[in-house]
Amino acid sequence: MQIKKIEQITHEKWLNLYSATFEHKGHSGHWLYASRKPQPNTEHRADAVIIVPVLRMPNEPPRLVMVREFRVPVGDYVFAFPAGLLEPGESIEDAARRELMEETGLEITKVHRVTQPLYSSSGLTDEAVAMIFVDARATAQTNPKLEASEDLEVVLLDFAGICRLCDDRSVRIEVKAWAILYLFQLLGHLP
Amino acid sequence: MQIKKIEQITHEKWLNLYSATFEHKGHSGHWLYASRKPQPNTEHRADAVIIVPVLRMPNEPPRLVMVREFRVPVGDYVFAFPAGLLEPGESIEDAARRELMEETGLEITKVHRVTQPLYSSSGLTDEAVAMIFVDARATAQTNPKLEASEDLEVVLLDFAGICRLCDDRSVRIEVKAWAILYLFQLLGHLP
Repeated sequence: MQIKKIEQITHEKWLNLYSATFEHKGHSGHWLYASRKPQPNTEHRADAVIIVPVLRMPNEPPRLVMVREFRVPVGDYVFAFPAGLLEPGESIEDAARRELMEETGLEITKVHRVTQPLYSSSGLTDEAVAMIFVDARATAQTNPKLEASEDLEVVLLDFAGICRLCDDRSVRIEVKAWAILYLFQLLGHLP
Repeated sequence: MQIKKIEQITHEKWLNLYSATFEHKGHSGHWLYASRKPQPNTEHRADAVIIVPVLRMPNEPPRLVMVREFRVPVGDYVFAFPAGLLEPGESIEDAARRELMEETGLEITKVHRVTQPLYSSSGLTDEAVAMIFVDARATAQTNPKLEASEDLEVVLLDFAGICRLCDDRSVRIEVKAWAILYLFQLLGHLP
C-alpha cells in the first residue's frame, strides 16, 4: 500500500482531522484519521507516556497505582494509569517522573522497563504512547498538583483489588490499563 | 466535572471532531476529541472487537495469531490482533467470528473471556473496544477475504516468537497487542 497525499481537514490547536489518499493493488481510496502531531506520518515518536507504578513502602504490601479521572470524550470517570503528554524535547523517563509527581505526589525509585512508542488505535489515529514500568514511593508532597481541567483521584490496589477491578464490568477502564490488570490477575501476584 | 455543551466541528462520514465545553471547580474550558459515533457520549457501547486467538492444532504447539497490517494513519505496517468494527446490532462474539474468518480464515472453537467496552485513549476519543480471548482452528478456507483497502498478512507466533516480538524495538506494534505479548512473556508460556 502507498500513501499518495495527506490533506489537513481541520486547523485546530490540539487535535486535527486528516484525509490520506492511498493506493493498493490498483484500488484507490481515502482514509480519515485524527492526529495531535503538526506533521502527521513523519516521525515515530511517542506523544504520551503511560506510567505503570507499583508503590512499595516498608511493612506494607506492594500496591498498583491507578487514577480514576473524568474524561471529557467519554463523559464519565475512567480508570487508567497515570499518564501525560510529553513536552518538547523531554525524555520518556523525565516525563514519567514529572507526571507521576504531578498527578499522585509519588516519586519513581526504580525503572523496570520502557517500551518503544506503541500505537493507541492505528486505524483511527497516529497517537503513540510509551509505557514505563516503575517502582514508586510516597514523598512529603501529599497534594498532587492538578491542573484546573483535571478531575482525578488516585487509586491504590493490592492484589485482591486488582482482581476485583479487572472483573468489574460496571466501571469504565482504558484498554491498556485493563490488559495490565489482567496480566497481574493471570500472574497471580504483583511482581 | 460537568459537560455543558458538545459541538460537532466536522461532518465527515466515518470520523468526526467534536468540541465539548466543560466546567470544573469554577473553571470552564474546551476539550477537542475524535469520535466515530453519530451521537458521542450517549452510549457505553463497543465500536470494535479485538480478537486474541490461540491456534490449537493436533500435534502442534499452540500459537498466538496476530496480523501485520498497513495502517494509513501510521504510514507503515503495524503488528496487532485481528480486529474489526461491529456492524449494527451485531454481538461481540458474532463480530469476532466474522472478522477472524475474514482476516485469517480461522474458526473460533472456544471463547475464554469477553471484556466490557474498554477505552482506546480516553483523552483523545470515545472509541471503545471489546477484547475477546479465544481458541481457533484452521479451516478449508485458506485465502482470507480481504477488502480492497486491506494490506494484511497473518503472523503465527509460538512462545519464543512472542518473546522476540515483545522485545523487538524496530517494529511498530499496537499498545493493546504489546501488553498481551508482555503478559505471555511474563507468564512464561502460552496458556
